[in-house]
Amino acid sequence: MTANLLSCQEATEVSVRALTRHGVSQENARIQTEQWVEAELRGRASHGLLRLPRIVERLQKGLAHPLSHGVQQWRGSSLLDVDGERGLGPVVAFAALEKISARAKETGLAAAMVRNSNHLGMLALYAERIAAQGQVLIALSTSEALVHPWGGKHAMLGTNPVAIGVPASPHPFVFDMATSAVSMGQIHDYANQNRPLKPGWALDAEGNPTTDAHAAKAGAIAPFGDAKGYALGIAFEVLVSSLTAAALGTDVRGTLDAEHVCNKGDVFIVLESAPGGMAGQISAYLDAVRACEPADPQRPVVVPGDRAQTQRERSLHEGFALAPDVWARIRELAGISPDSAQDQK
Amino acid sequence: MTANLLSCQEATEVSVRALTRHGVSQENARIQTEQWVEAELRGRASHGLLRLPRIVERLQKGLAHPLSHGVQQWRGSSLLDVDGERGLGPVVAFAALEKISARAKETGLAAAMVRNSNHLGMLALYAERIAAQGQVLIALSTSEALVHPWGGKHAMLGTNPVAIGVPASPHPFVFDMATSAVSMGQIHDYANQNRPLKPGWALDAEGNPTTDAHAAKAGAIAPFGDAKGYALGIAFEVLVSSLTAAALGTDVRGTLDAEHVCNKGDVFIVLESAPGGMAGQISAYLDAVRACEPADPQRPVVVPGDRAQTQRERSLHEGFALAPDVWARIRELAGISPDSAQDQK
Repeated sequence: MTANLLSCQEATEVSVRALTRHGVSQENARIQTEQWVEAELRGRASHGLLRLPRIVERLQKGLAHPLSHGVQQWRGSSLLDVDGERGLGPVVAFAALEKISARAKETGLAAAMVRNSNHLGMLALYAERIAAQGQVLIALSTSEALVHPWGGKHAMLGTNPVAIGVPASPHPFVFDMATSAVSMGQIHDYANQNRPLKPGWALDAEGNPTTDAHAAKAGAIAPFGDAKGYALGIAFEVLVSSLTAAALGTDVRGTLDAEHVCNKGDVFIVLESAPGGMAGQISAYLDAVRACEPADPQRPVVVPGDRAQTQRERSLHEGFALAPDVWARIRELAGISPDSAQDQK
Repeated sequence: MTANLLSCQEATEVSVRALTRHGVSQENARIQTEQWVEAELRGRASHGLLRLPRIVERLQKGLAHPLSHGVQQWRGSSLLDVDGERGLGPVVAFAALEKISARAKETGLAAAMVRNSNHLGMLALYAERIAAQGQVLIALSTSEALVHPWGGKHAMLGTNPVAIGVPASPHPFVFDMATSAVSMGQIHDYANQNRPLKPGWALDAEGNPTTDAHAAKAGAIAPFGDAKGYALGIAFEVLVSSLTAAALGTDVRGTLDAEHVCNKGDVFIVLESAPGGMAGQISAYLDAVRACEPADPQRPVVVPGDRAQTQRERSLHEGFALAPDVWARIRELAGISPDSAQDQK
C-alpha cells in the first residue's frame, strides 16, 4: 500500500462505522459504503466518500431513512413500483434489482420504478452487477436542474445519467454517463483548484458563457453533445417522470442538499439476452474496436468501462487518494478522534 | 397546393401502387408507404420515398418479403421474440408493437426483440403512435457500420438511432435521433450539391479528417457528442445485439444495399406510465423549457419534436418537395408512363 493512499478495507470500515453510528443497520451501511468505495476505486471521486457527510446530515434531519428498503408493489407481473420511503439510494435500488432480476428470468424482462429514494451513486455498479450475472440492465435517474437547454440561458434539466450493462467476457460491458458536458462535482473541483473551465462547459448565473468555475457554480452546465445531447437529456427527464411520477426540472430537490426530501426518480429495466447469449461475439467485437487504428498512435481506442476497470485494479492494489478534509470529517463522524492510534494513511 | 410540391395523397397513391405492383399486399404497402410519407412530411427526406426504389430492388431479389408480418413468439409473458422473415421493417414492427402494447397493459411493460426484418424508417413514428395512445416507448435499432469509434480511424459502429415517446398534451413528446454526428443521407446530399462538410463530421477512406463529402462517402462519420456520444452508440450496438442476436459492427448488412439479407436488430420496449400519468405536468414542463430565456433572442428554445411537428403541419397543407429523379423513378416503378396525364407536380 503506497503511503498517503487509503485501502479499500480501511475506507469501508470507517464509512460503515460512521453510518451505523447514525442509526443505519450494518447491512445497509455496507451496501451504501460499497457504492461509494467502488466509485473511489474507479477514480469517480464525485460519487465517492465525499457524499458521506451530506448523507449523515440527511439521516440526522430525517430526510434519509437509515433502515428502509422501500415498499415494493407489483403493478402487473413485470413492473415493480417502489416507494423508497426516503431510504438510502443503493439500499432501495439493490432490493428492487433483486426482485426484478428474478422476475425477468420468468417474464423475459421486468422493471422497477423508484421514487422517494436518496441518491443512487454511480450507476455503473448496478449495470455491472446485473450484467455479471448474465442479464442486461438499462438504468436511468434524474437530478436537480443543473443543465441548460440547448440555446437557453438557465438550468432546467437534470444531469440525467444513463447506464447500460451487457453480458460479455472476461468483464461485462458497462456504460455509465451523465447527459451533461461535465458534472457539477467537476465544476466544484475546478473551483477548488482555481482552474479555468473549458469554453462551452458552463454559463454563469446570468446565463452568459463563463470559464470561471466559481461563477459556474451558481449558473448552469451545458448538455453534452450540443443539441442532440440536450434532446437526449430532456427525453430522459420526461421518460423517468412519466414512469415514476418524479418531479421535473427545477422542482427536483434533495440529491445534493440537506434541506429537502429527494423527489427525483430512478428507472431500472432488466432484460434477458437472446437465447444462447451473445457474450462471446460481443467481447470479440469490443476487442476489434479496441484494435481499430487510432488517429493518434499514442492513444489507443478504448471502449466504455476500460479506464474504470484499469483504475479499479490499480486502486485495489495501491489504494486510493481521498481529500484529507473529507477523510478527517468521515473519521470524526465515525467517532474516531483525530489523534487516534489509527493514523490517517 | 403549391406548384411543384407533392401532396401526401398523391405520393401515397403512387407509392402504394409501386409496392403492390411488386407483390406487396395492399395493407403492407400502406403501412410501408405511410412511414416514408410521414418522414417526408417532417422534412426527413433521408428516411422518405427515396428509399422506395431500393426496397423494390430488395423485393425483386427476395431480400425483402412482400407479405410477412414476422413470426412472433413469447419468451416469458413480457418478451416477444420476432423473426421478421425478411418482412418490410414497418410492417413487422407495427405487428410487434400491437402485441406488446396490449401485453404491457396487463404486465406493466413488454418488449419486442426483432431480427431478420428490413429497415424500420424513421423511429419517431413508432414513438408517436405509442405515446399518443398513452404508453411510453423506447425504440432502438442498429445499422451498417458507418461511424468511427472516438479516436479511431475506421467505421465500426452503426448510426444506431434511439427514439423515446412519452404521453403529453396536446402532442406526445417524441424524441428520435441517430448517435452519429450526421446521417449518411446528409453526406450524400452534400456530395450531390458539392457542398463542403462541417469540420469534424467525417473521415475519408484512409481515416483522415475531410470536409469533402465525396471522400466521406467512402469513409466514416463521426459519432455525435465526441467521446460520450461514441460511448452511447457502442452501448446501443452491444445492447441490441445481446437482446436480438443481431450482427455487430462491420458484420451488419442489408439496410442500405440490395445484395444482403438485413441482419441488424430492433428493440421496442413499451411501458405503462405511473398511475394517473404525468401528461399534464410534462406538457407544463416542456412549455417552461420553451419559455427559457434564449441565448440568441432570435432563436427560441425548442424541445424535441417541435420542428418536425411544425414542418408536418405545413407540409400537410402545402405538400412537400421530392427530388424529380426520385419521383420519376417511383412513378416508373408504379407503372405510370412519363407522359401520363397524371403530371408530375
